[in-house]
Amino acid sequence: MPRPLIALDWGTTRARAFLIGEDGTVLDRRIADQGIQSVPAGGFPAAFAAIAGEFRRVRPDAAIVLAGMVGSRNGWVEAPYVACPASTEAIAAAGIAVALEDGTPVTVLPGLSDDDGAFDVMRGEETLIVGLGLQDGIACLPGTHSKWAEVRAGRIERFASFMTGEVYGLLRQHSILARLAEEPAGGDAVDGASRGFAAAARPAGLLNAAFAARTEVLAGRMRGGAVGPYLSALLVAQEIAGARALFGQPKEIELVADGALAESYAAALTAAGLSFRITAPEAAFIAGVRRLAAGLVA
Amino acid sequence: MPRPLIALDWGTTRARAFLIGEDGTVLDRRIADQGIQSVPAGGFPAAFAAIAGEFRRVRPDAAIVLAGMVGSRNGWVEAPYVACPASTEAIAAAGIAVALEDGTPVTVLPGLSDDDGAFDVMRGEETLIVGLGLQDGIACLPGTHSKWAEVRAGRIERFASFMTGEVYGLLRQHSILARLAEEPAGGDAVDGASRGFAAAARPAGLLNAAFAARTEVLAGRMRGGAVGPYLSALLVAQEIAGARALFGQPKEIELVADGALAESYAAALTAAGLSFRITAPEAAFIAGVRRLAAGLVA
Repeated sequence: MPRPLIALDWGTTRARAFLIGEDGTVLDRRIADQGIQSVPAGGFPAAFAAIAGEFRRVRPDAAIVLAGMVGSRNGWVEAPYVACPASTEAIAAAGIAVALEDGTPVTVLPGLSDDDGAFDVMRGEETLIVGLGLQDGIACLPGTHSKWAEVRAGRIERFASFMTGEVYGLLRQHSILARLAEEPAGGDAVDGASRGFAAAARPAGLLNAAFAARTEVLAGRMRGGAVGPYLSALLVAQEIAGARALFGQPKEIELVADGALAESYAAALTAAGLSFRITAPEAAFIAGVRRLAAGLVA
Repeated sequence: MPRPLIALDWGTTRARAFLIGEDGTVLDRRIADQGIQSVPAGGFPAAFAAIAGEFRRVRPDAAIVLAGMVGSRNGWVEAPYVACPASTEAIAAAGIAVALEDGTPVTVLPGLSDDDGAFDVMRGEETLIVGLGLQDGIACLPGTHSKWAEVRAGRIERFASFMTGEVYGLLRQHSILARLAEEPAGGDAVDGASRGFAAAARPAGLLNAAFAARTEVLAGRMRGGAVGPYLSALLVAQEIAGARALFGQPKEIELVADGALAESYAAALTAAGLSFRITAPEAAFIAGVRRLAAGLVA
């Protein structure tokens, strides 16, 4: 019998909390600043009550499932990584039970590890990937540390992380390029992006292409407003090239993103000649946590 | 008739000043903090006197030649870039004359520009490349913004910049990897370097390989002390791969570096199967500025 669900994507700096009805409808949602790094030792039951206590008052019968860094060494309880290839059932089965102050059980989901090539880990993204309901395909989850994953026969076969968002921030805010960069105006976003895609296709690589933004601006050939879009396009295109080298030529990519990030990746995938389908992260999370919760109950 | 020479490699944050005898012997040298960014408008004659006045008292007959950012828009005078391909004679001929307070002439050397592929510029490195006295070959000048240049028939044919040193600093000091990185001890330098070279050879690219340092350390598979050497090896290997893609497979590379930078690049070139010859930057600068000064006199 389906139950309502209180589900948190509880990361290092933030928690996204959802109250989900029996039929999958999101009845309520909250984004809270209480990331796990702000929770003192032993403080997780109280932090949970602060974030989602209201959901419990509304639906005291709800099952409670937590995903993300809350299952890491620095979280509520360490839920050890499940090694790839990982089925939805295996991920659900590796959930760890903890209890609220009144004894109500809470399941903390594990992350995944992949030892194929470079050792890699994820926490939280596995739930979104499960939510895509893929049998076979490639998922791309852009972010500070983007993840690409291959699903085969319904299992997460392998995945890889890319430091794209973080390197963008470092170059845009802290490198020699930061002084030249301005807020994009007029055609800057389009101009910077098309230059960035072209630069990514040149053979000299990222370290050369990033520097080229400086010389182009100093020479008056590119506007300062195009620097950010240039760097973003260059880095995203490099990420996509790396993912293709790892996963081969996918027929279609499941892009899990919204807002500006979805636009950037959609443009870069299109420039790379790849077709894709966009799913909003919230929708993927809700679907994934419901699938995993069903696995827990079964 | 050869004259003694006072030569400065005058950059943004520092000046390296040399008193060079008629036969090329370095009679005296000084490194000064008076980079061009610390010199107020109109203050260059006084700054020169503070840096190299003593050399003038010793050899008042010396010719004076300045290389580097001192010839940029923010320097003493703007010496416009010479476009590649550039001969030693063309570089010398593009020097701009300024005068000390007593009227003594000073030559400010130009930089080079290259519009082959990404637009690129250099100021100062051209003097070191001239100093190598190559007829045909590839020069590698590592640094914050490394330069690679191809010399054909004695001319600097084309060149490219790589943001290697700066990106290393950003990742090592300001990224998520900074918290995990420790000072190398024991075998960390060798271990990190060999892992970095291996990671650079994997197809997923820099953004993936940089992140792998984090997961390897968190998994207890790599020591924190190996993070810096890993990143250095990864980035230098990427730079070398980019340069090879641009310049083809060189027979021998002229590596202009000393100290730890020479060691890092020597290891990376060796790992890439490339042979090289090392020239110290000071020796290359002295030889280059003497060649260019001879061109000025001729």
